[in-house]
Amino acid sequence: MNAPFAVKPSMTAQRLQAASAIASASVGNVGVGFDILGHCIAGASDRADVRRIDTPIVRIASIQGCVDVLPTDAAQNTAGAALMALRKALGLQHGFELTLHKGIALGSGMGGSAASCVAALVAANALLERPLPRESLYGFALEGEAVASGGRHGDNVGPMLMGGLVLATRDRLVRLPVPASWHCALVHPHVVLETRKARAALAGDYALGEFVAQSANLALVLAGCWRGDAELVREGLKDVLVEPRRAPLVPNFARVKQAALDHKALGASISGGGPSVFGWFEHRAEAEAAADAMRGAFAEAGLDSDTFVSPVDGPAASLVPTADAGECA
Amino acid sequence: MNAPFAVKPSMTAQRLQAASAIASASVGNVGVGFDILGHCIAGASDRADVRRIDTPIVRIASIQGCVDVLPTDAAQNTAGAALMALRKALGLQHGFELTLHKGIALGSGMGGSAASCVAALVAANALLERPLPRESLYGFALEGEAVASGGRHGDNVGPMLMGGLVLATRDRLVRLPVPASWHCALVHPHVVLETRKARAALAGDYALGEFVAQSANLALVLAGCWRGDAELVREGLKDVLVEPRRAPLVPNFARVKQAALDHKALGASISGGGPSVFGWFEHRAEAEAAADAMRGAFAEAGLDSDTFVSPVDGPAASLVPTADAGECA
Repeated sequence: MNAPFAVKPSMTAQRLQAASAIASASVGNVGVGFDILGHCIAGASDRADVRRIDTPIVRIASIQGCVDVLPTDAAQNTAGAALMALRKALGLQHGFELTLHKGIALGSGMGGSAASCVAALVAANALLERPLPRESLYGFALEGEAVASGGRHGDNVGPMLMGGLVLATRDRLVRLPVPASWHCALVHPHVVLETRKARAALAGDYALGEFVAQSANLALVLAGCWRGDAELVREGLKDVLVEPRRAPLVPNFARVKQAALDHKALGASISGGGPSVFGWFEHRAEAEAAADAMRGAFAEAGLDSDTFVSPVDGPAASLVPTADAGECA
Repeated sequence: MNAPFAVKPSMTAQRLQAASAIASASVGNVGVGFDILGHCIAGASDRADVRRIDTPIVRIASIQGCVDVLPTDAAQNTAGAALMALRKALGLQHGFELTLHKGIALGSGMGGSAASCVAALVAANALLERPLPRESLYGFALEGEAVASGGRHGDNVGPMLMGGLVLATRDRLVRLPVPASWHCALVHPHVVLETRKARAALAGDYALGEFVAQSANLALVLAGCWRGDAELVREGLKDVLVEPRRAPLVPNFARVKQAALDHKALGASISGGGPSVFGWFEHRAEAEAAADAMRGAFAEAGLDSDTFVSPVDGPAASLVPTADAGECA
């Protein structure tokens, strides 16, 4: 699933008037990489159907699926804004009509707005006379993401574009190696936590010591991924900067996290802005057992939740046959 | 030079009553890894001669070389304090007598106190019945470093113990890969900047945005080293957190840094607490040309300076024949 469909420019220019793409959910921040580190999660995705239109605008035909409160004014919608940025940058004469099939709940911390944005870009890109390489879509994805979250951070759109675990800086995407056996358990409790509220919890000043501790942890996680050394990750996958400030926003967080650690998690923390919680594991079976226990801990707080178990090296966004239906999670 | 002398426990226990070791200078922080990232520099080193004594104490016989204002009370001296920590932890019955030959100027930002500390530990370790592996000396080195700087940071002692570029967290040393052709130019102006003063410049609060930008840069440098991708390092080797606060303490810093960048530096910043300035380069010839230009920029401020050009992957501390003389820089 990691390899996007190959689209030959010479063919698409002649034939394709419409294309569809899916983008999987993602774990933003990965605890220690606030705003710069994220990875894809198989099992939940948004789908975008994009049609080339003669009118030189971007319009949203409809938004379907698990979510129906999203703005259909293109400029106010992450996917719409991204396509508008694409049109403007390339000076396109034609426009796009967009239908979104939401499979990822909003305010879940699973990158739902990013997924719509990336799916739309990947589909629209296939309709260009000369489709751009994936990384060249990054700037447009950041434009779209900014509409939803108020900031240009690439830790969700970056992994969705490239697949796997990605370092997403202001201008650059770097895909990082991760052992194929490492899995993530992601548990999404049925409660909404708005991205903007989650960011407000981070207001205020920070001490240099917090920075040193967090950057040491980030470096350990990166080194552990490169070496395939789980013990380095176990030592480093501890968010000492953001998690303490956001934990009060996630119901029963301490016990959910502990449930992951009790099942051999290399580390566990809040996914993106929350309320979803993730853990990393060396093996799939551990992640599956942990996901059940984490869901149990949310149930103690009276919350139902969905669980996902995926390789950390999850799938990039990809083109799909236009007739496919999106999954709902 | 990277491989320390091999010392066979069975031989040393019987024969060695004295040993000598040298530890090279180092570039602490490397701009983007405040307190956690450093690398060794060939060309300047401290030497420690350590003798096993029956008296159960650590005493400093003398301190020779470029520096003579250091405390000879063992508990107040970085090397003495490190050996005291070693004795205490291992419950040694015997003591150590220590002679230091300083080749690295104090207050230079080249890790002079760390070098004495590591050289003493490496020499004393060779006198143990069962010498410890290098990384097991780290905790003792941190104890010594704390005497000089008031903090337990391993970005100088870590690389000296392991060689090359090292991630030094609270409990862990990770040597990072660096292409053999990458070189560092380090220029030491003849002016003292005390470590404590350099740290005082960092007092106050920090914004989360500064942290995000700096950690993105750190991650780019680490990724660049792992991939051997100079462009990633060029993008990331920019200290946006500490350098702006310390730059006013380094005479003519902006022009010294620019001199490095004008000679194709991948990046340049303050070495450790300053006033030395370093740059990284893809090739030795570039580093040599830059070192001259950087020295010229210090000369504009009326300062003489020493220059060093070394592989980034510089030499670890090593045992030396007891008769050798240390170099002076």
